[in-house]
Amino acid sequence: MRTQVGIVGAGPAGLMLAHLLHLAGIESVVLENRGREYVEKRVRAGVLEHPTVELLRETGLGERLDAQGLPHHGFALRFDGVDHRVALTDLTGREITVYGQQEVVKDLIAARLGAGLAIEFEVTDVSVHDFTSSRPRISYVDAAGVAQTLECDIIAGCDGFHGICRPAVASELSFYERAYPFAWLGVLARAAPSHEELIYTYHDRGFALHSMRSPEITRLYLQVPPDESLDGWSDDRIWDELSARLSADGFTLTTGPILEKSVTPMRSFVVEPMRHGRLFLAGDAAHIVPPTGAKGMNLAIADVRVLASAASAFLREGRTDLLDAYSDTCLRRVWRAEHFSWWMTSMLHRDPAGDPFDHRLQLSQLRYTASSTAALTSLAENYVGLPFGAPS
Amino acid sequence: MRTQVGIVGAGPAGLMLAHLLHLAGIESVVLENRGREYVEKRVRAGVLEHPTVELLRETGLGERLDAQGLPHHGFALRFDGVDHRVALTDLTGREITVYGQQEVVKDLIAARLGAGLAIEFEVTDVSVHDFTSSRPRISYVDAAGVAQTLECDIIAGCDGFHGICRPAVASELSFYERAYPFAWLGVLARAAPSHEELIYTYHDRGFALHSMRSPEITRLYLQVPPDESLDGWSDDRIWDELSARLSADGFTLTTGPILEKSVTPMRSFVVEPMRHGRLFLAGDAAHIVPPTGAKGMNLAIADVRVLASAASAFLREGRTDLLDAYSDTCLRRVWRAEHFSWWMTSMLHRDPAGDPFDHRLQLSQLRYTASSTAALTSLAENYVGLPFGAPS
Repeated sequence: MRTQVGIVGAGPAGLMLAHLLHLAGIESVVLENRGREYVEKRVRAGVLEHPTVELLRETGLGERLDAQGLPHHGFALRFDGVDHRVALTDLTGREITVYGQQEVVKDLIAARLGAGLAIEFEVTDVSVHDFTSSRPRISYVDAAGVAQTLECDIIAGCDGFHGICRPAVASELSFYERAYPFAWLGVLARAAPSHEELIYTYHDRGFALHSMRSPEITRLYLQVPPDESLDGWSDDRIWDELSARLSADGFTLTTGPILEKSVTPMRSFVVEPMRHGRLFLAGDAAHIVPPTGAKGMNLAIADVRVLASAASAFLREGRTDLLDAYSDTCLRRVWRAEHFSWWMTSMLHRDPAGDPFDHRLQLSQLRYTASSTAALTSLAENYVGLPFGAPS
Repeated sequence: MRTQVGIVGAGPAGLMLAHLLHLAGIESVVLENRGREYVEKRVRAGVLEHPTVELLRETGLGERLDAQGLPHHGFALRFDGVDHRVALTDLTGREITVYGQQEVVKDLIAARLGAGLAIEFEVTDVSVHDFTSSRPRISYVDAAGVAQTLECDIIAGCDGFHGICRPAVASELSFYERAYPFAWLGVLARAAPSHEELIYTYHDRGFALHSMRSPEITRLYLQVPPDESLDGWSDDRIWDELSARLSADGFTLTTGPILEKSVTPMRSFVVEPMRHGRLFLAGDAAHIVPPTGAKGMNLAIADVRVLASAASAFLREGRTDLLDAYSDTCLRRVWRAEHFSWWMTSMLHRDPAGDPFDHRLQLSQLRYTASSTAALTSLAENYVGLPFGAPS
């Protein structure tokens, strides 16, 4: 079998890449080891940057997003029991949209299947070969159990942090990594949001985040120790802890049945370069951010936007300059997001190893950030997403 | 002997407090264990915030400052061998003034002596007593060797980090402290500045700062290991290292005879509260910042501005509210400066224990700070000094 771009992974990065390539008249094949139902239900990030939303709209994916996505023009920083609003739109002229990653995935799958194009779900034994030659190959076993070889011009490794593409070039990469001394316990609850906007809370007991997925579904997070077991977290204990950390004058936490709970580790991770020969890494395969800045999916979309243009210039015009620039172009935005996510994380979490000096610095930073228009604007412009191609 | 305010220390804090009290019609006595010549020649900070300059002018100390001080409307952030200007005045409407601390001290001493008031230099064996009563006392031995007791209403501990006032109440205080894994090797050279503005440089070899004291005197700093000995630093080695770190296209470092060299440790330090009974700590006696943000003397001036008003309200009207608020009022600005100084220090120094992830974060922060108007404004408003009384 032969295609122009072989894409490993049907998450937001792989599916969006296939979508952008299709619009540019480039053929691709998408391979995914999970089933369609799994990837469409996988709960992940839920905040879309402004540039991400614009790109989705421009490429015909705006309909359900505009109908069901929740535009947010600000969020609250809560500390010392008081809210300080970060007025995103007033400060930057842009907003974010709350729309679950799995909804973006559903839209992308529907668009691809609707165009009569396939996604190979439930493939196994995927491996990548000859990517330092001009004829790279992907071998895999398809859902029917038949061994296949896919020849292509370019391989896109969009298979996430635990995928097979990055390990295939690991010896050629530099690794940059940071582990954090905490994780997020996240719950999805059938409860109306307690506030119309997100609330990022710094509390002596630890970070908490009030978010939402719809007018009926609240998404809530608690800072917990890394590798925390869910066993000790009954629904009652979760609600008690959320109430304690989110307490503020005039605020009442709406409770309801907890539909899902999980613990997400916090990690910063980047590999450089993001390309080796004809193999291009994109999204979580190349970098992970802690979830505090809500940048993960947005970075994946930004990567494949660059990759789609570069692949198109190469495959249609024979130009190699954009492919050659791919890694550097992406890494500028990646490191901006890494820094911003680290900054938000450091400012809002209680470091169990932190000393009282750290704690006072954090409080001073929070107070300043909440009171300075310049500092608020800096936070806001990063949060809504710097324009694609902005110097960073 | 009896006075209203007994001031320990004739640095900028003590002398400025005496000056402000005198203008408010309050008597004070200033005790200093060094001689006049020593304090007038002690080379320390050289950057005055805008609010500091305004206060000096408003209180009659502007003449020599305006004649000899160098107003600066911006400075350079230099990294990757390229300058990025922080246009202080364009961004904030305010500027800083380069004017040595010893010049401020000279002006303050001249003002006090000119008003027919005394400063007791070269006192010894100073100790503070009964400050939890309404009649605190300071005992000391005067320059003539005569033991004295000074009765007062209020004692101001303006005697610096190594003074005797803070230790006298140490058991009542909380300490917040951070040591940095580097120091500054500072030189004063008889050489015209190589650039009209300050240059804060981040280099793989470490931080360097180009500053100046006058059109003929350059002030230069190099990041070195903590407790570095000057023995290994010949003048030639200093110039070589400065040239390497400060190298940039079109930049030539002017050299000349080195008049003075010293190694300054980098430390963050705060005690809370800044008041115990009738003893009030101000300036370095209560807090130290690393020199990167140029905040040390400015904080000292800000403290005594608050203390002078509070003491005046108490001694003239019997009001205790401002004295009661003194510590909290000062500490908001202190922690803002502590955070800013830590931030500038972290961004610009090479941490010998830093991993490659830290280094990439630093570069991303520098690139972002240099390219975002919001981030530049945030840096600039802190650097020129937030208005007195601003929420922080």
